[in-house]
Amino acid sequence: MDSLLVKKFGGTSVGSVERIERVADRLKKSFEAGERFVVVSSAMSGETNRLVGLAHEVSSKARGGEAYDLLLASGEQVSISLLALALEKKGLRARPMLAFQLGIKTDSIYSKARIQNIETDQLHEMLKEGIIPIVAGFQGIDNFDRITTLGRGGSDTTAVALAAALKADACEIFTDVEGVFSADPRVEPKAKKIEQLNYEEMMEMASLGSKVLHFRCVEIAAKYQTPIHVRSTFSELEGTWIKKQENQMEAPVVSSVTHDPRITVLSAEPVPVGLGLLADLFEELSKEEVLVDIISQAQGSQGQRLAFSIADEDADRGIAILKKLFSSSVEITQVPEVAKISIVGVGMKSHPGVAARFFKVLKELNVDLKLVTTSDIKMSGVISREFIDDSVKALHAEFGLS
Amino acid sequence: MDSLLVKKFGGTSVGSVERIERVADRLKKSFEAGERFVVVSSAMSGETNRLVGLAHEVSSKARGGEAYDLLLASGEQVSISLLALALEKKGLRARPMLAFQLGIKTDSIYSKARIQNIETDQLHEMLKEGIIPIVAGFQGIDNFDRITTLGRGGSDTTAVALAAALKADACEIFTDVEGVFSADPRVEPKAKKIEQLNYEEMMEMASLGSKVLHFRCVEIAAKYQTPIHVRSTFSELEGTWIKKQENQMEAPVVSSVTHDPRITVLSAEPVPVGLGLLADLFEELSKEEVLVDIISQAQGSQGQRLAFSIADEDADRGIAILKKLFSSSVEITQVPEVAKISIVGVGMKSHPGVAARFFKVLKELNVDLKLVTTSDIKMSGVISREFIDDSVKALHAEFGLS
Repeated sequence: MDSLLVKKFGGTSVGSVERIERVADRLKKSFEAGERFVVVSSAMSGETNRLVGLAHEVSSKARGGEAYDLLLASGEQVSISLLALALEKKGLRARPMLAFQLGIKTDSIYSKARIQNIETDQLHEMLKEGIIPIVAGFQGIDNFDRITTLGRGGSDTTAVALAAALKADACEIFTDVEGVFSADPRVEPKAKKIEQLNYEEMMEMASLGSKVLHFRCVEIAAKYQTPIHVRSTFSELEGTWIKKQENQMEAPVVSSVTHDPRITVLSAEPVPVGLGLLADLFEELSKEEVLVDIISQAQGSQGQRLAFSIADEDADRGIAILKKLFSSSVEITQVPEVAKISIVGVGMKSHPGVAARFFKVLKELNVDLKLVTTSDIKMSGVISREFIDDSVKALHAEFGLS
Repeated sequence: MDSLLVKKFGGTSVGSVERIERVADRLKKSFEAGERFVVVSSAMSGETNRLVGLAHEVSSKARGGEAYDLLLASGEQVSISLLALALEKKGLRARPMLAFQLGIKTDSIYSKARIQNIETDQLHEMLKEGIIPIVAGFQGIDNFDRITTLGRGGSDTTAVALAAALKADACEIFTDVEGVFSADPRVEPKAKKIEQLNYEEMMEMASLGSKVLHFRCVEIAAKYQTPIHVRSTFSELEGTWIKKQENQMEAPVVSSVTHDPRITVLSAEPVPVGLGLLADLFEELSKEEVLVDIISQAQGSQGQRLAFSIADEDADRGIAILKKLFSSSVEITQVPEVAKISIVGVGMKSHPGVAARFFKVLKELNVDLKLVTTSDIKMSGVISREFIDDSVKALHAEFGLS
């Protein structure tokens, strides 16, 4: 049987009528080459921000809810309609499909809904008839017929979930870069496009600040073993494949160096001994939607020293919560201007000594590590932001990525 | 039992965030005064045109179809979401409802769909719970779960159909004018707001060029005897009621003078005797969506003389069709710069001599009548556009409307 693909186009790929026409040309070529595929589209770039802006103009507190999600979902309705019109103009048959029409069922957690089930009968029917389905990304429908949205990276999630449900051969994510790189090319010009990654590596990279794919969509792909192909909308080149790798023997020790400059570190000392207060603290942070990344806790002579990293924009809320929970005798410090640098690679599992090389490189640059965390396949450190560029380059070279 | 209303807001009423907030204020007042109501909203003014523009940028031939209608329907999705957010901010409970969620069933004729059925169970349920339903106007859903739109005046049609289905006490149409006037106030400053009209009068006025209400929505109101109240969004004054009038004895002979400057007259002479060719002609015009208004046909010594009026923008297509069907010996003429002037009133039925007064007024102004048509309750003539203003004023005075 012919291969079956899901092709997902991001906001910049459909950001103007001209670009929509280019996407349509590309789809026409694929269709005429005999490919069978389902298309998923994001809203035109800027549209979701415009809608969020309107909502906040009406009510500064507007957020996830029936009206808010319904508003945001209109963006994809526009882009899929225009893409369908562009395909029809080129003589193809296309049908725009909203989540409710297709049956993309989610839970009822507005703005962060999770896909529970996708009906595929209609899609198979359309494919058989030679009709190209153009599916609205980012949106779903709950059990009460209310429209939900999936949150950040939502259209990627729609695409991968659809590919999994269809048992597609791959989910192609078309974007404005050529694939996933071994480091940010703006920082390390020697960074190279990675040919293959496995799901675990991509998940680590996503959660470490790589913007190419969202964590959730990789998680779904991993669960259903759906291959993802991240590639450029504007070129025919192969991009980066994310899939289960058979031959792990040849995996490089480290696949990429990732960094995230938008973090801050908060520390508190001395914190009264015991876990009760810490449990309260992290519960309160989570309630206020402050995502804690790296946590370090050490017993000192004066009591516990606690430090953790959070996103820059959450700094004020984090400090407020610390001040509320801790007595005035606890010194609360914010370490600003820091950044997180990470190395990721499945090869780390089987190669000892990676941590030592990581520390050595940073030491040679006289970089001070403020927080450290490791897992099977990644190692992260928080350092002063001023050293980020040099550290990325040095680590990139150390692990033979250049 | 309390009264039940449908309140419909047009595009200019929800044309900006500020105006949406004003509408929300007004609805809050009504709600707190104990009114029970369902809201219907158009798209923000300019939005539908923006969407049509995008569609035509993609494909100049884009028109009524699955993708086109889906695109246009997104406009109302935005306005009802924002209106619901504005009401929630003011402490009310509101739910935005799309056609598919409510069950506004239509046929499958895209861009001109007709409503077949509206489910009202959910609305009654919401009203009972004190939730304000905010319904998207202009859109429907067909039997294949595809989104349709209702064409021009579609949101008014949604509102009136909803009022009929709910057996509401009235359908309030909020607009940017204070009601229906006895003539266009820009032409005749003495024009007055009409307090009451019956359905037949309003239907005639709508088809004669009055922009306040669309013919179709009045037709539905008449069928179900639903009272319509046309009133200003920006004032508390009573507007114009359109309903069955009990006491016709007091009806004025003429209720209003209406005019439509955007028409043209085409004539052909001599046309071969017989109806075959004429039937072909009007079939061809209808196929090309050229709407013919007044038709005049007279037997002359040289053969038949045919003249008919159509909308200005259809002139070129009309001439092309005439040239295609008639041989070169038939002289085809376009009479440009004409306009239609009409008087409407149920009193005309029982008052003879109205036609005579109509002709007398125009004769005194030395106005030449190019085409004339009459019905029970209206009389229309096509005249040179330059005489329109004077004729409107003179007829307005003649029938005691000033």
